[in-house]
Amino acid sequence: MARIAVVAGDGIGPEVVAQARKVLDAVLPGVEATEYDLGAARYHRTGEVLPDSVLAELAGHDAILLGAVGDPTVPPGVLERGLLLKLRFAFDQYVNLRPSRLWPGISGPLASVKPGEVDLVVVREGTEGLYAGAGGSLHRDTPAEVATEESLNTRHGVERVIRDAFARARRRERRKVTLVHKTNVLTHAGSLWARTFEAVAAEHPDVTTEYQHVDAAAMFLVTQPQRYDVVVTDNLFGDILTDIAAAVTGGIGLAASGCINPEGRYPSMFEPVHGSAPDIADRGVADPVAAVLSAALLLDQLGHADAAARVTAAVATELAGRTPGASLRTDEVGDRLAGYAVA
Amino acid sequence: MARIAVVAGDGIGPEVVAQARKVLDAVLPGVEATEYDLGAARYHRTGEVLPDSVLAELAGHDAILLGAVGDPTVPPGVLERGLLLKLRFAFDQYVNLRPSRLWPGISGPLASVKPGEVDLVVVREGTEGLYAGAGGSLHRDTPAEVATEESLNTRHGVERVIRDAFARARRRERRKVTLVHKTNVLTHAGSLWARTFEAVAAEHPDVTTEYQHVDAAAMFLVTQPQRYDVVVTDNLFGDILTDIAAAVTGGIGLAASGCINPEGRYPSMFEPVHGSAPDIADRGVADPVAAVLSAALLLDQLGHADAAARVTAAVATELAGRTPGASLRTDEVGDRLAGYAVA
Ligand SMILES: CC(C)[C@H](C(=O)O)[C@@H](O)C(=O)O
Ligand SMILES: CC(C)[C@H](C(=O)O)[C@@H](O)C(=O)O
Repeated sequence: MARIAVVAGDGIGPEVVAQARKVLDAVLPGVEATEYDLGAARYHRTGEVLPDSVLAELAGHDAILLGAVGDPTVPPGVLERGLLLKLRFAFDQYVNLRPSRLWPGISGPLASVKPGEVDLVVVREGTEGLYAGAGGSLHRDTPAEVATEESLNTRHGVERVIRDAFARARRRERRKVTLVHKTNVLTHAGSLWARTFEAVAAEHPDVTTEYQHVDAAAMFLVTQPQRYDVVVTDNLFGDILTDIAAAVTGGIGLAASGCINPEGRYPSMFEPVHGSAPDIADRGVADPVAAVLSAALLLDQLGHADAAARVTAAVATELAGRTPGASLRTDEVGDRLAGYAVA
Repeated sequence: MARIAVVAGDGIGPEVVAQARKVLDAVLPGVEATEYDLGAARYHRTGEVLPDSVLAELAGHDAILLGAVGDPTVPPGVLERGLLLKLRFAFDQYVNLRPSRLWPGISGPLASVKPGEVDLVVVREGTEGLYAGAGGSLHRDTPAEVATEESLNTRHGVERVIRDAFARARRRERRKVTLVHKTNVLTHAGSLWARTFEAVAAEHPDVTTEYQHVDAAAMFLVTQPQRYDVVVTDNLFGDILTDIAAAVTGGIGLAASGCINPEGRYPSMFEPVHGSAPDIADRGVADPVAAVLSAALLLDQLGHADAAARVTAAVATELAGRTPGASLRTDEVGDRLAGYAVA
């Protein structure tokens, strides 16, 4: 039976994670869940972000379900680098998976795009690029200060994430992969990405491919998001593009994500893209849909494709039935979703 | 009298530049313009992209007006790096200025944003960051290949562009500057940008400031572009964000840009953001508005604020009078704009 580590976290994290667990329990009875207390609250209480002993315990699980970490009272970067990025790198989560759908029932910001027309997934590289932490500065706080950030890219790292993108495209209807980079300026890394992409594409004649510069892709995500199926890109470009994709499909409030170690050597981690939203915490009004969709990604990754599909269908039913602007209760949404998923 | 170098370039470049010159001549009679043959056509004819002798001649002008360079037949990167980026760096054009307005008469892609509500300008750093060309690769074409790209940032380069952004904000109604970076991941460069921004802000108590991560800014440009006044950011983030800003305000077909050396030690360069559009070249149907707006930026930079304002007002009149979907003739638009500008 699946052993899951749950990091409910801060703010609305515990509320939405409770609903995700409700739905998980409904579709896959017997999941073993262990709670881990990490995030702003623990940091304030103990000064600890992610003790090695906890990291070691997390490693023993099949997957991690995370609510949200962060609070305005924690210095910026502490939890991002000390917890979220640390887990991505320690557990070699090289596929950062971010699907975006414009669900029926949701009115996105784009006048010309109809619900149901957008269904894309960004496969963002998760362990390299400008996130490697390679950089430094000299002559700090003087007029001579210089600061560098280095993007590190390996054939190993680029090839494995591109292969993952092609494998995902093969399981989708349109079978199309768009590589996004900036090969006309970042010539060294861009060339590595482009050559690797071409080599992997040659092994997949059944998959349609295209290349776009990141600036063009950012524009087309706004003007024609329908055109994308699977997008594969580097860590930083993926960070930006997935927020645009979320924005055009109704906001990060509905966006799910998975930080995946596809081979399962380490646990993968699943979390809603939204933050801890301390302003609405503990009021029972947070929308748990993104957390529940993250649980669906978790189920899929653990081999329960059927249960994942039932959860996704439950979300579709829930969203199609919503009245725009109507208020919601977190636990009622969770109850409904659990009900739909087993119906 | 102003001495301008004109690089009409490829595709629709010559057609739209002809209209920009028509309007320039109307509002500022006696401009001395010298044509320079650069771009894909010259590259194919002579193999040359930007001979040193031409670079030296260009340096003797007050400004450069550029139409569009590029053609699918030129290997990617050749004209970008050999011409556009070379000019930006050689002429120390550290302010890459990109205004975005949702003009009355233009229906943008966002359902909730009304014409007239968006009026922002991105001040993109133009001579540093990941555009420095610092990178390399090892073990190319082997499984051990590694490729790097380095972002170089100096206090000198960061401070001067931030100062420019504050100066521009002071001349605008809302007097607000948003710094966009990714300080939670790019900690060294991010810290330099953030500390420099704070220092300059302290000297400008009459300017409102805010900071946003680049992923959040990309999202808010889609959901609430109205919130921005002046945005200052690094070279690569600016590349991406200005295309989003163009997309939400009707597309790059209307977007103007200036690569500016504010002190005037070297010529600044003004160009429409759109490309050479070879598919519609020579048919007289290209919209010259972006080229004409770029000429307005040129006028402003050369100290002819009044003439610049008349050109901008002429564009407003032109766009407000358009019927959505109606076809246009490049030269007729130019004639009308010249007429409005001197009326
Ligand atoms: C919090 C931050 C470090 C993180 C990132 O940049 O990857 C976030 O923006 C995300 O997209 O998950
Ligand atoms: C053509 C390319 C080098 C250029 C850039 O990346 O700056 C373009 O995208 C732009 O925004 O002017």
